[in-house]
Amino acid sequence: MLYTARYIITQNETREILENAALLVRGTVIEAIGPAAELKSQFPDEAVEDLGNAVIMPGLINAHTHIPMSFLRGYSDDKSLMDWLYKDIFPAEAKLTPEVVELATLLSCAELLRFGCTAFYDMYMLERSVFKAADKVGIRAVLGESVSSFFPSLDAKNVDEFFESFDANDELMKNHQLIRHALNPHAIYTTETAILQRCRKVANEKKLRLGIHMCETTVETAGSLEKNKQRPIAYCDSIGLLDENTTLIHMVDINEEDIATVAARGCATVHNPASNMKLSSGVSPIQQQLDAGIAVGLGTDGPASNNAQNMFREMYIAALLQKLDKKDPLQMPVQTVLDMATRGSAVALGWADTIGSLEKGKSADFCALSLSEPNMQPVHKVLSNVVYSATGMENKITVVAGKVLYKDGFYTSFDYATVLEEAGKLSDWLKNN
Amino acid sequence: MLYTARYIITQNETREILENAALLVRGTVIEAIGPAAELKSQFPDEAVEDLGNAVIMPGLINAHTHIPMSFLRGYSDDKSLMDWLYKDIFPAEAKLTPEVVELATLLSCAELLRFGCTAFYDMYMLERSVFKAADKVGIRAVLGESVSSFFPSLDAKNVDEFFESFDANDELMKNHQLIRHALNPHAIYTTETAILQRCRKVANEKKLRLGIHMCETTVETAGSLEKNKQRPIAYCDSIGLLDENTTLIHMVDINEEDIATVAARGCATVHNPASNMKLSSGVSPIQQQLDAGIAVGLGTDGPASNNAQNMFREMYIAALLQKLDKKDPLQMPVQTVLDMATRGSAVALGWADTIGSLEKGKSADFCALSLSEPNMQPVHKVLSNVVYSATGMENKITVVAGKVLYKDGFYTSFDYATVLEEAGKLSDWLKNN
Repeated sequence: MLYTARYIITQNETREILENAALLVRGTVIEAIGPAAELKSQFPDEAVEDLGNAVIMPGLINAHTHIPMSFLRGYSDDKSLMDWLYKDIFPAEAKLTPEVVELATLLSCAELLRFGCTAFYDMYMLERSVFKAADKVGIRAVLGESVSSFFPSLDAKNVDEFFESFDANDELMKNHQLIRHALNPHAIYTTETAILQRCRKVANEKKLRLGIHMCETTVETAGSLEKNKQRPIAYCDSIGLLDENTTLIHMVDINEEDIATVAARGCATVHNPASNMKLSSGVSPIQQQLDAGIAVGLGTDGPASNNAQNMFREMYIAALLQKLDKKDPLQMPVQTVLDMATRGSAVALGWADTIGSLEKGKSADFCALSLSEPNMQPVHKVLSNVVYSATGMENKITVVAGKVLYKDGFYTSFDYATVLEEAGKLSDWLKNN
Repeated sequence: MLYTARYIITQNETREILENAALLVRGTVIEAIGPAAELKSQFPDEAVEDLGNAVIMPGLINAHTHIPMSFLRGYSDDKSLMDWLYKDIFPAEAKLTPEVVELATLLSCAELLRFGCTAFYDMYMLERSVFKAADKVGIRAVLGESVSSFFPSLDAKNVDEFFESFDANDELMKNHQLIRHALNPHAIYTTETAILQRCRKVANEKKLRLGIHMCETTVETAGSLEKNKQRPIAYCDSIGLLDENTTLIHMVDINEEDIATVAARGCATVHNPASNMKLSSGVSPIQQQLDAGIAVGLGTDGPASNNAQNMFREMYIAALLQKLDKKDPLQMPVQTVLDMATRGSAVALGWADTIGSLEKGKSADFCALSLSEPNMQPVHKVLSNVVYSATGMENKITVVAGKVLYKDGFYTSFDYATVLEEAGKLSDWLKNN
């Protein structure tokens, strides 16, 4: 299939933006990309899907979320972190069933696709149900059970049982084309050293990504200094947790030494600006991380603290936040922002060889924003329209590994009407359980 | 017409939210509001427009913008304020014609309506062309020429000519049902004392709103301290500029004394969080203004510094920004945010008797968000979905003074396809002129 449109943002090495361009998809991959006229004459028999006055771009990659938490979207806002967690979120999560996790994941996947997101990195519980839903939808995902020292959890009665169940899930996800398993210790303040080290060992053995909430607040730093006599990064480094298959999430309260260590170990990091603002956590120093050579991805965090899985909104907030924080409007220009949401996030998922840009040989994971909505005109510099003006709902089509999963209001791989109806009952379910 | 929906957010005195509710519109006003079943039996012959799984709410009110600047949307981003203004914006504005202002206003009005906004307060140039477009569209607006000490301007060769042209425009807008004229001196750092005082005099004589950019940056404060030996608010107060018909825009660099003065004079203020972040201006202390009894509205600022006219996005950013700045997630809860964008903005437009809430006797100015998009489910607390999850593009219908101006992708009062086509040529026009 030859997809044509007014613009294609490639996000390739030189960040080419093509006008009146085409993308040739064969099977799951991009076979060619270039001027529409050229590709049409080169492949005259190819079926053409003309997206018209639109911009095709790499599918955005949500590098950190707790995807099933859409069941709690809007359930608790405007609370202090501890009240929010202990009075509202944890008691509600205790009621969770595999069925609700699956339903909430389907709802979230619908949202991701609707807003042009083609891949996500999830950290939650009952991940087998998340897998079931993501597999059904056909979206790309890195899925990892979150583990801490608190047992019993929804996943296991004790830590040994957790790792047994983790092994079983690993068998389930192994060799899946679009879904990869990961191991996600929750955070250093919730997870004891022995479990962190066991996570690292298992991740190494199984060659899996390891993700962990890191340096989210000053409280976390203070706790580590008291307990470990070291800042969080130094502590993690001392126990051998950090390597090039590690993704560090949040990275708000970090200093130059932390950044140097993370860069030296080759970890990726993930920025979650909306969640950091809503929970008053602070501002992650992004340019310093980029300057140190760290791959920085972008994530929404869970729908209970964001309250959307909208990577376009997240890009806009990321840009504004750094400009404000650094008192410098030159910070985080549009290209840097889009790089985070595509190429940077691809690294954070451990999948940069396959996704993050539109190039020959890469997977055909893309979306296309309509430029016919009034907020998308005129087009002086299309990157600006995409980063600063789009809501994400201008998206017309979402394709993952060559397969159309969403187009013009319709989902192809699952019954959205049923998901919507069932999701509509979640508020009553929570009240009555 | 009886409009029914799953929810109605009234924004009345007690902030009632009705479920399975109806809004009876007769002519331009709300005749009744209440449970759908009740109103249906009370008015059995009334035509019913069922909006279904949606939330009807007061149309949002954009209390500060430079609406024709959509012609420069995305033209210049990520620049220092002075480079942005002097190298990009001012040279481009010098090319403006009445035709381009009219076209850009039509485009912006399409955007406002698309995103559920029913009224705006504009400060720009060639306001006669803004009037022509707004009048055609049928949107509610307060329109005011911006005046400074810099002449010639697009409006006049000198200050006397400006006030002559202002008088002529006042004749044009006088007695219009939906459009009111206003007088908008640009700012104290661009407008000399004599002109500011003349503006106040003319506004008093004609009983018009007076709006002015105020306390936007620390540079402005420093300049006033040097030139006037007073902070901006004290200076304005000393020359008699401040009263209950005055709207002060931005209010970033203000202290307790400034707030007390503004409260005592009864001015309204307008918060523009996205613009303040993007231009690195700083953070306006909102709760302190509210605590002092000041009516605070919300605005997007112009499309060249935002880059959208999306009041839903603005509400979300307003909430996040205060939580971050005050290091307190309890700041700016959803109700406070929505109050700013409706009741607060209505005061800033000088129109609180007519708009800002859905109540019997008020004007039928409303929009309705679909709750069937995946980002809008489930609904635990509908205010949260509206403020924290909506993009604004969920909007299905926009009604101003009882008249449907936008519905399900279509505009009723002007030819959007032509506007879109003409807007698409603006980039080339700018290059070639």
